Amino acid sequence: MTPIRASAVAEMCRGLTGDAEFRGHGDLMLTGINSLEEAGPADLSFVANRKARELAALSKAGCLLAPQGFEANSPASIHVADPRGTFARLVAQLLPVTRPPAGVHPSAAVDETAILGEGVSIGAHATVGARSSVGADCTIEAGCHIGADVSLGANSRLFPGVTVYDRVRIGARAVLHSGCVIGADGFGFAFVDDRYEKFPQVGTVDIGDDVELGANTCVDRAALGVTRIGAGTKLDNMVHIAHNCQIGRHVVIAAQTGLSGGVTIGDYAVVGGQVGVGDKARIESKAVVGSGAGILTSKVVRAGQPVWGTPARPLKEHLLQLASLSKLPELRERVAELKKRIEALEKGIGST
Amino acid sequence: MTPIRASAVAEMCRGLTGDAEFRGHGDLMLTGINSLEEAGPADLSFVANRKARELAALSKAGCLLAPQGFEANSPASIHVADPRGTFARLVAQLLPVTRPPAGVHPSAAVDETAILGEGVSIGAHATVGARSSVGADCTIEAGCHIGADVSLGANSRLFPGVTVYDRVRIGARAVLHSGCVIGADGFGFAFVDDRYEKFPQVGTVDIGDDVELGANTCVDRAALGVTRIGAGTKLDNMVHIAHNCQIGRHVVIAAQTGLSGGVTIGDYAVVGGQVGVGDKARIESKAVVGSGAGILTSKVVRAGQPVWGTPARPLKEHLLQLASLSKLPELRERVAELKKRIEALEKGIGST
Amino acid sequence: MTPIRASAVAEMCRGLTGDAEFRGHGDLMLTGINSLEEAGPADLSFVANRKARELAALSKAGCLLAPQGFEANSPASIHVADPRGTFARLVAQLLPVTRPPAGVHPSAAVDETAILGEGVSIGAHATVGARSSVGADCTIEAGCHIGADVSLGANSRLFPGVTVYDRVRIGARAVLHSGCVIGADGFGFAFVDDRYEKFPQVGTVDIGDDVELGANTCVDRAALGVTRIGAGTKLDNMVHIAHNCQIGRHVVIAAQTGLSGGVTIGDYAVVGGQVGVGDKARIESKAVVGSGAGILTSKVVRAGQPVWGTPARPLKEHLLQLASLSKLPELRERVAELKKRIEALEKGIGST
Repeated sequence: MTPIRASAVAEMCRGLTGDAEFRGHGDLMLTGINSLEEAGPADLSFVANRKARELAALSKAGCLLAPQGFEANSPASIHVADPRGTFARLVAQLLPVTRPPAGVHPSAAVDETAILGEGVSIGAHATVGARSSVGADCTIEAGCHIGADVSLGANSRLFPGVTVYDRVRIGARAVLHSGCVIGADGFGFAFVDDRYEKFPQVGTVDIGDDVELGANTCVDRAALGVTRIGAGTKLDNMVHIAHNCQIGRHVVIAAQTGLSGGVTIGDYAVVGGQVGVGDKARIESKAVVGSGAGILTSKVVRAGQPVWGTPARPLKEHLLQLASLSKLPELRERVAELKKRIEALEKGIGST
Repeated sequence: MTPIRASAVAEMCRGLTGDAEFRGHGDLMLTGINSLEEAGPADLSFVANRKARELAALSKAGCLLAPQGFEANSPASIHVADPRGTFARLVAQLLPVTRPPAGVHPSAAVDETAILGEGVSIGAHATVGARSSVGADCTIEAGCHIGADVSLGANSRLFPGVTVYDRVRIGARAVLHSGCVIGADGFGFAFVDDRYEKFPQVGTVDIGDDVELGANTCVDRAALGVTRIGAGTKLDNMVHIAHNCQIGRHVVIAAQTGLSGGVTIGDYAVVGGQVGVGDKARIESKAVVGSGAGILTSKVVRAGQPVWGTPARPLKEHLLQLASLSKLPELRERVAELKKRIEALEKGIGST
Repeated sequence: MTPIRASAVAEMCRGLTGDAEFRGHGDLMLTGINSLEEAGPADLSFVANRKARELAALSKAGCLLAPQGFEANSPASIHVADPRGTFARLVAQLLPVTRPPAGVHPSAAVDETAILGEGVSIGAHATVGARSSVGADCTIEAGCHIGADVSLGANSRLFPGVTVYDRVRIGARAVLHSGCVIGADGFGFAFVDDRYEKFPQVGTVDIGDDVELGANTCVDRAALGVTRIGAGTKLDNMVHIAHNCQIGRHVVIAAQTGLSGGVTIGDYAVVGGQVGVGDKARIESKAVVGSGAGILTSKVVRAGQPVWGTPARPLKEHLLQLASLSKLPELRERVAELKKRIEALEKGIGST
């Protein structure tokens, strides 16, 4: 990053939060941002939780963004009420995300009927199909393939090697990481005579504003109608969204989770990694699904409910079952012992 | 789609099934096909199961393809014996799959020794390696990479961004969705001294006719010999097929399932999503493996058998175990109660 | 391969191992290498374990590399102490891995500030960003996208369609299979007001020498600092490595396994397929994690320990629990029987 004085960073924090206390050497020049473990004397780092407080004592960071009252032993420190949140906004200013320059790379193959907004950047070897529209200031990086009749909202970014099939709609400020495939055919086949015949997959995909999709994530088109991902939803790497899923707004889904066909997820739900969700299950608003859980076909997870395990059940039940399970060998021993005591009693009664 | 009168659609149904009853406004113009929920007054939709009957009552669809005797309240309806199957074939006629025009895009890099059949379409920035042959009417979309000595049967389609390594054979009418990787090295290493040395992966991959592979699915080459996927088999997104697997004909495997090295799957088997199969396991013909199941190394799943859970066992046993498991806390309470009663008996005997 | 006499192959084995006994027809011409099942009369194959001995009896292979004292019925055979290891090295000589010729394909887009070492091969439609350095004899195949400020060590190979984001460092002799994505943003969001705000992902990725990554595997960049994969480590297909993971040297991770943020794995650990590892868990050196296991957040797996199941526990405990579990229905019956006997005793005492 551009070198900056520690005192100037404190001033930026004041601009962001209204209140920031600076301690130490104001003239210290900062040239980078790093974790507590990796930071050097010209780096800025931050202290948020208890673990970080321990690491901070050993850190070589030149300047720490820390909670109010924290005794930093770094050459400089800035103290704010919410170090993590302030740090996030500070980094966005100090290391603004760069994007390739506007313009169409001469090797890109953009159909003559495609409509490109102002400030669009199209990278090398990218393709944009017939009648597709790319919103203002979008970035389509090298080797992305946009089909025909696609609509892409303003300020969205596709990292290298993203594929968008025909007729998909993507909102504004969306971020798609490399290897994402949007709009491939859903997995729909009918067994006719002695073979599988494809059920037509003629629907499409609609991805809302501010959605972020991780690397190699796949969102299939609907058989009929629309597979939807609501505004503000974030998917991690290698997530599988089957045809006709309806995902709400501000949902979070961690890596390698898979949704079968027609699954519904309500707003603000949180789904862990490697979860499997059966056909047409419904996960209601603000529900929480633990990593590795398996949700059966047509199952309903109630609003706000935390569920865990396979088949998924309310967290309390799951923990109770796990506890019982771990005591199962002991339970078997106890039953064997009771059996002996019963035998002794039976003998005793026989002998009385 | 090209606008068409409802009565003309009924006529097409008669052509497909021999028998179709038309009710309502024959002049109604249809311009699209959609799900019951999303359809508007110019859309065709269909009613197959009980759930759909309920949705149909609320649907705004202009014309419904429905079972015989179904009381549709749409402006027009067509009644047939098998609405779902008829619908599938109807859609294939009304919305025929389009493919890019034949010809080689000027930006494609096709080796001069490659052989292209009649009517082949090669997209922008695609590559085809030395001595590879591409069958008649194949479609290789933008950014696909076909290695050397590859053989691709007639009428196959590779969506954008598919990679096929050297020496792989793919049959006719195969469909590979974006991001598929066919023929990467199998995961074979020998621990020698204090490091892993690669075991040569010099075999290949053979994919049969009419196979469909979902987005980002990977099929590794054999160490020696051939990794095989039989004709008519369908794999969903992000399926992992390790080296030397032998998959039969008309097998279905749902998303995110992984097969370890040397697994065998018989014809017509059905494997759910997120299943894990250990080295050299054998899943026989027409077996059914439930989603999320884990099949141990060298395990044999018998022909026609449904198995579930981890480690996978026959469905009945699995359900019995699940039922026992959910009653485990109750069983622990019962044992505690029996213990008290035994203690009471022991005291009672002691006092007699 | 180039045809070679069986006796000449025996001579090569002597060069590799110091000792190799040849039996049979030395003039037999060998033209290929294959598995025992697929080999024909001009193929070389090998016999290592008991299963292979059975297959060898039925094999049509012209020449077998076999253990000392093995009674081969093939036209020719070569006998050595370690047939598998010798075979691996033999194959590397008979079928040396070929790489595309050195040079930059005219369609590649290499930034003028990038530095290419001697003998580098850059394929069609590949891109290399500003200030990136590509070590001597590296192979970057068709459609790979290398960002800015990337460093790639000598003799590494990227198969077609690999994406490397900005500022990533990759060592020497690394192999990245198609569809790998290195350095995409970690999955870090803070819930602010009623939506998720991205936590900046400004760290990077460091991949050591001799690392091999399978097809469609993803390694995310650190939020701050570095996501590390140590020298000699091998990852299978579709493995997910989240931000800030620290993976040691000579670690093996099988397909579809996912590590959450900040996971640490020690040298020489072995992790099976479809394993899920929670945030900040630590898997110590030489630990073994069974396929399908689930490791909870912050859990520590001790050095050398084998763990299995979800939640993962020591293998012995896991097997004991599985055994108890499979006898659970039987246990329930036994408890019901004991209850009856207690009732009988209670009646008996009452009647005495």
